[in-house]
Amino acid sequence: MYQTREDLLEFVRPHLKQSRFEHTVRVTDTAVKLAERYGADVEKAEVASILHDFAKHKPKEELKSWILREEKLNNDLLSYHHELWHGPVGAFMLKDELQIQDEEILSAIAAHTTGKKDMTLLDKVVFLADYIEPGRNFEGVEEVREIAENNLNEACLQSLVNTVQFLTNNKRTVYPDTIHAYNALV
Amino acid sequence: MYQTREDLLEFVRPHLKQSRFEHTVRVTDTAVKLAERYGADVEKAEVASILHDFAKHKPKEELKSWILREEKLNNDLLSYHHELWHGPVGAFMLKDELQIQDEEILSAIAAHTTGKKDMTLLDKVVFLADYIEPGRNFEGVEEVREIAENNLNEACLQSLVNTVQFLTNNKRTVYPDTIHAYNALV
Repeated sequence: MYQTREDLLEFVRPHLKQSRFEHTVRVTDTAVKLAERYGADVEKAEVASILHDFAKHKPKEELKSWILREEKLNNDLLSYHHELWHGPVGAFMLKDELQIQDEEILSAIAAHTTGKKDMTLLDKVVFLADYIEPGRNFEGVEEVREIAENNLNEACLQSLVNTVQFLTNNKRTVYPDTIHAYNALV
Repeated sequence: MYQTREDLLEFVRPHLKQSRFEHTVRVTDTAVKLAERYGADVEKAEVASILHDFAKHKPKEELKSWILREEKLNNDLLSYHHELWHGPVGAFMLKDELQIQDEEILSAIAAHTTGKKDMTLLDKVVFLADYIEPGRNFEGVEEVREIAENNLNEACLQSLVNTVQFLTNNKRTVYPDTIHAYNALV
């Protein structure tokens, strides 16, 4: 159905810095394990994870022009930190460049940074894998890794709590989708 | 322009428990001081504060029927804790019962619990007065009282941070307007 893992990794490699590529491999390994543990589609988890940061290093102006052009991309993204743009825009770019039509994969890529209101099983797997991959070492990640051994929803919820608390402690804006994701899991 | 403070207090008294009435008097005194300090309309601050909890003890079903009936009341309130309903519904009830037409007063009453995206000076004064009135003793309130001596926006922001952190620590839902209020002040 999809290209092999190796093909996709070679496709994405030139778009990423080396450290970001290594992060991508770790997210993919983590997502595959989570997908197996929680009964998500393992192949889709792998594809979405390999591609999740595809747009991470694209110029801010290029991301912005996609947001302005694509009706389905919420313009309110432009009022928030540009770090949040690469997920949703990346999903649209990949639709073009790789002809990915699978809405589940595109959704997981789009929502991987902020979360969103009604996350699917696949959305949660990729979101959580990005948060707990073994290279992450922010405060609270070890607790989330432990919860992730047994409860996907609780682990996603705790990662959202940590994120909201980190952002509010530092007086940084919180994208509303993150609160929608949190509220849906409470 | 408006009825006297005493008339309004006597109007609201039978709608409130004694402890809630005393809270209302404290909020009013606090709001008047804040309005004087920050150049808000003192009379409007007084009226809005006296009336802010008018709907606090109304039956849940009565509040719900207002939300369902009034187009301008956001139905998504029903998905959140009913403690959040009395502000917005109270504003509509008072429009009926007291023929209050002043949109600034009604807005301050509506937003006093959750905050909202673009808070006016009066909204902030009543919101903050409700948070720091001398009867409050929750964690962090003393810090907010100190900030309120010098900076209205910073004090509102810190109260919103405290609220979001309290709610997320306790895995309770966060009404999106609270995040909009927070984001607007960051």
